Amino acid sequence: MSDQSMSDQSMSDQIIANQVRSIAILGGTGDLGGGLARQWSRAGYKILIGSRTLEKGKAAAHALLAEFPDLSVTGHENLDAATQADIVVLTVPFAHQLSTLETVKPGLLGKILIDVTVPLVPPKVGTVQLPEKGSAAVQAQDFLGDGVQVVSAFQNVGAQHLREDHAIACDVLVTGDKRAARNTVLSLIEAVGLRGWHAGPLVNAAAAEAMTSVLISINRHHKIDGAGIVITGESKT
Amino acid sequence: MSDQSMSDQSMSDQIIANQVRSIAILGGTGDLGGGLARQWSRAGYKILIGSRTLEKGKAAAHALLAEFPDLSVTGHENLDAATQADIVVLTVPFAHQLSTLETVKPGLLGKILIDVTVPLVPPKVGTVQLPEKGSAAVQAQDFLGDGVQVVSAFQNVGAQHLREDHAIACDVLVTGDKRAARNTVLSLIEAVGLRGWHAGPLVNAAAAEAMTSVLISINRHHKIDGAGIVITGESKT
Repeated sequence: MSDQSMSDQSMSDQIIANQVRSIAILGGTGDLGGGLARQWSRAGYKILIGSRTLEKGKAAAHALLAEFPDLSVTGHENLDAATQADIVVLTVPFAHQLSTLETVKPGLLGKILIDVTVPLVPPKVGTVQLPEKGSAAVQAQDFLGDGVQVVSAFQNVGAQHLREDHAIACDVLVTGDKRAARNTVLSLIEAVGLRGWHAGPLVNAAAAEAMTSVLISINRHHKIDGAGIVITGESKT
Repeated sequence: MSDQSMSDQSMSDQIIANQVRSIAILGGTGDLGGGLARQWSRAGYKILIGSRTLEKGKAAAHALLAEFPDLSVTGHENLDAATQADIVVLTVPFAHQLSTLETVKPGLLGKILIDVTVPLVPPKVGTVQLPEKGSAAVQAQDFLGDGVQVVSAFQNVGAQHLREDHAIACDVLVTGDKRAARNTVLSLIEAVGLRGWHAGPLVNAAAAEAMTSVLISINRHHKIDGAGIVITGESKT
């Protein structure tokens, strides 16, 4: 619906369709970022872990390599990681979303930014408190402008799901204004053994971002570990 | 979290804990309302179908009785249905939510209102467009005031799921500020063979309401009929 016509899309599709070989994970020192780094690295991607300081980035890379010596993981300062990688994933806490984007903006031009930000506002993390722009993802796109394709994903995947090797019962909602960019992200989701869905334009990120507080409430009220969501339905035949 | 202390709750719990025997379904002439009427009636509840006119309410009741003669279903004007029933379910389109509540407000005092409203804004129903108050449910609670307990539920259940008799793979997120009211609604959800979840305070209705547009987008992009969500996770032991 928000996809532009094929002719308008051709240039950005060119960028998007370039094969993704390297992935920068900003906030790769966190639980979810670390889990994604491990899974994508095992799937054959070159991983650049970004952090606010080179030291912290290197320490996170070393920690992963100590556990899995065969991975291709290096540690960097955030801007350096974003500049060198084909695609960039933002997994920092909501409070650091815009300040991190400000630092790395020059490295994002012409790339897809996968925004994993969930706008949780402590201490009431089980209560939906969406930002004024409607979602963290739209806030990121507004800040970055047209030169970057923001795609929102992974809000409802608990970090523990990525640390375990058994099948993960949690789907990934993928929102973004261009189908080609969503497709690139869907292929990265498949690469880590998850199931992704075209969930509509970027404003629909509000649903996935709000759902995280719902899952936290469900965990609490029903004494569940790592509640997730799975999409059901029958294919039209 | 938003639950009040036990002593504060005792009076409203008294109201809430009264056994529900009769259910008013405002907008019971629609697909979802009709499906709920059929399922709850089969589960033994007395159903009062409400509509803007007595004639339309009666016609909807007659149509259901023609198909299932053993059901306990009567047709009413909305205010009459709300006044007579133990609990009231609102299943009208978003555009008619507040005008319907205005009509029935005197009949709701001391009762639970189950708000099923999804704030879809045609023609872009696959695009999340939450109302200014954050959700249709909060808009209803603000309009009705403290004398009515609004609980939000059923936003993500396709009407077709309630018409079919096979097991329904779609969970129900239940949000509301009082646990006792949510529990009453959870028992009604179980009565129609669905699985319900305590999904947090009423503001969390934003997640379920937004999710409906996501499911519409998924239906469209993945050529699925009646996409729904199921909550996954492991009980703590």
